[in-house]
Amino acid sequence: MKKHNFNAGPSILSQYAIEETAKGVLNLNGSGLSILEISHRSKEFSAIIEEAENLIKELLEIPQGYSVVFVHGGASMQFCMIPYNLLNKKAAFLDTGTWASKAIKEAKNFGEVVVVASSKDKTYNYIPKGWTIPSDADYFHITTNNTIYGTEITTDIDSPVPLIADASSDILSRPMDVSKYAMIYGGAQKNIGPAGIGFAIIKDEILGKANRPIPTILDYRTYTQEKSLYNTPSCGAIYTAMLNLRWLKNEGGLKEIHKRNLEKARVLYDEIERNKVFVATVNDVNDRSIMNVNFIMSENYKDKEEDFQKFASSKGMVGIKGHRSIGGFRASIYNAMPLSGVQALVDAMKEFEKAL
Amino acid sequence: MKKHNFNAGPSILSQYAIEETAKGVLNLNGSGLSILEISHRSKEFSAIIEEAENLIKELLEIPQGYSVVFVHGGASMQFCMIPYNLLNKKAAFLDTGTWASKAIKEAKNFGEVVVVASSKDKTYNYIPKGWTIPSDADYFHITTNNTIYGTEITTDIDSPVPLIADASSDILSRPMDVSKYAMIYGGAQKNIGPAGIGFAIIKDEILGKANRPIPTILDYRTYTQEKSLYNTPSCGAIYTAMLNLRWLKNEGGLKEIHKRNLEKARVLYDEIERNKVFVATVNDVNDRSIMNVNFIMSENYKDKEEDFQKFASSKGMVGIKGHRSIGGFRASIYNAMPLSGVQALVDAMKEFEKAL
Repeated sequence: MKKHNFNAGPSILSQYAIEETAKGVLNLNGSGLSILEISHRSKEFSAIIEEAENLIKELLEIPQGYSVVFVHGGASMQFCMIPYNLLNKKAAFLDTGTWASKAIKEAKNFGEVVVVASSKDKTYNYIPKGWTIPSDADYFHITTNNTIYGTEITTDIDSPVPLIADASSDILSRPMDVSKYAMIYGGAQKNIGPAGIGFAIIKDEILGKANRPIPTILDYRTYTQEKSLYNTPSCGAIYTAMLNLRWLKNEGGLKEIHKRNLEKARVLYDEIERNKVFVATVNDVNDRSIMNVNFIMSENYKDKEEDFQKFASSKGMVGIKGHRSIGGFRASIYNAMPLSGVQALVDAMKEFEKAL
Repeated sequence: MKKHNFNAGPSILSQYAIEETAKGVLNLNGSGLSILEISHRSKEFSAIIEEAENLIKELLEIPQGYSVVFVHGGASMQFCMIPYNLLNKKAAFLDTGTWASKAIKEAKNFGEVVVVASSKDKTYNYIPKGWTIPSDADYFHITTNNTIYGTEITTDIDSPVPLIADASSDILSRPMDVSKYAMIYGGAQKNIGPAGIGFAIIKDEILGKANRPIPTILDYRTYTQEKSLYNTPSCGAIYTAMLNLRWLKNEGGLKEIHKRNLEKARVLYDEIERNKVFVATVNDVNDRSIMNVNFIMSENYKDKEEDFQKFASSKGMVGIKGHRSIGGFRASIYNAMPLSGVQALVDAMKEFEKAL
């Protein structure tokens, strides 16, 4: 049976990336060696990591003066790297969920932290409005997409101080005006590639101003100056990411994928609205994520949650169980999820409703 | 033509690990999903990471009271994690090469550093003897195998203070008395698996004594308490590592692989001694690494280095170019390199000599 992979991350990748990775694991471009066995200093791997970084630059139309790097350890590593490199006195944060909270917690080890607003009061089911960014902050940090709660900030904010965005789960899902950000970063395991790498898009001029010694491996300049090759990177993960980025470009890039992502989200949210069995957890349609669609059982069907979980599994749906903090269901519909997968889930929802 | 992979790292892996990884990338155990697309919280991945950690425990006969974890970023990340977690006043180091020097440099950000001895005077071509470990140090740090220089400490040192060993390039090449170490750590990309993960074998009782706040992701307790799953790990790399460890166990474990490694090293060093064209860079036979065999052109054949490089390449040898800091050649003969590969190199050396 065809599986429809709605995992929140690690998550669905393009079939092209999967198949070409398997070939490269056995024999990279006819070299007789595996991608897992070649030197990160080899010309073969240099070409791979350069293509990956250039594809990110090209897809996001990143302006001059920015570097694209792959770093170790995912977004959680960067929760400490960012204050290490950039927080001298004060940092401001918008608290939109678990990941924002974790970034806030790590920053507190390095300086003063101001939370401009939080949606914790309603289990983060909305994006706070009407807050002000302190003009004396070293930077302002947002989480553009909140994987667990299914909310998303889809506008590129104007900020009086350097704007830093954790875009782990919506990077490359839509065009962004990168020039409005000092830094966009995250873990790669949604729209970029598999688990095992983090990425950072950094405005070069913000670096080098920290008033503390920075361990070499946590200093972003180590990555920008050494082109992500200061030490051995996660070569296999970077290879798969490069393939996945190549696929995205071949599919038409960010404008095209954004159109498809909007359509996928529309189809799924429309069904949730229509179907009497389900209800969306995010009420404000403007705050709804187009990457992670969260829904719970409606008032009259609370006792049917497990039934739907089983029914959906029997139809090939994988990874739709909601995060334990809000329960219900979460369908992660990243770039590589085709509309047909979303349609299969919608069909299962309709069928379940009809059978009640 | 058959390629013989002498890369220093990322390096040769068992054919079993390569082939099974390719299968798992396409379809993990018949699940219909790729190892690169499944959740790190899934029962499938839990079983994989648990098997990997247990195999390291079993192969090294690790006693009670130690944890085995996979961390982000390789040995270079741990060069700062170790002092972050363990250096309150003073740390002692044995300086046996570039990697030891890098570990020393990072530790200096956190406290006093004492270098008990260094072999820098002779481009690190020997292991210093006759030094004393200060009894008031928080720990004593060694690099068991020096990949670049081809030297190795093969005895398990008795230390009056916690002994910490960077064993990146000789872990699992021989049995070790783990009880003599407070910690054994490194990057995984030699005998454990592919690039993209670091490992640490930690005596639990040494943790939790730091007199500074530690960023969550750099705190070893985060890894020991969350069983390496605090955040998304490098799932693909851990899968390949598990397969490679399974292979090592099936081959007979550390006693058997040690026997083979000694034999491979003997065959290669014997040829270097016999062959008039080459000379070993490490004079003291007791200091010679059984993992990285370094040799240069002998006095009368200095001008033939490039010729041998080309000749060896034509015979399928890959990655034998020496590190730029010492030139010449380096054959890395990790666990997965069969005796037949070493024999092929020896044959090429003989043939090259004969043709002069």
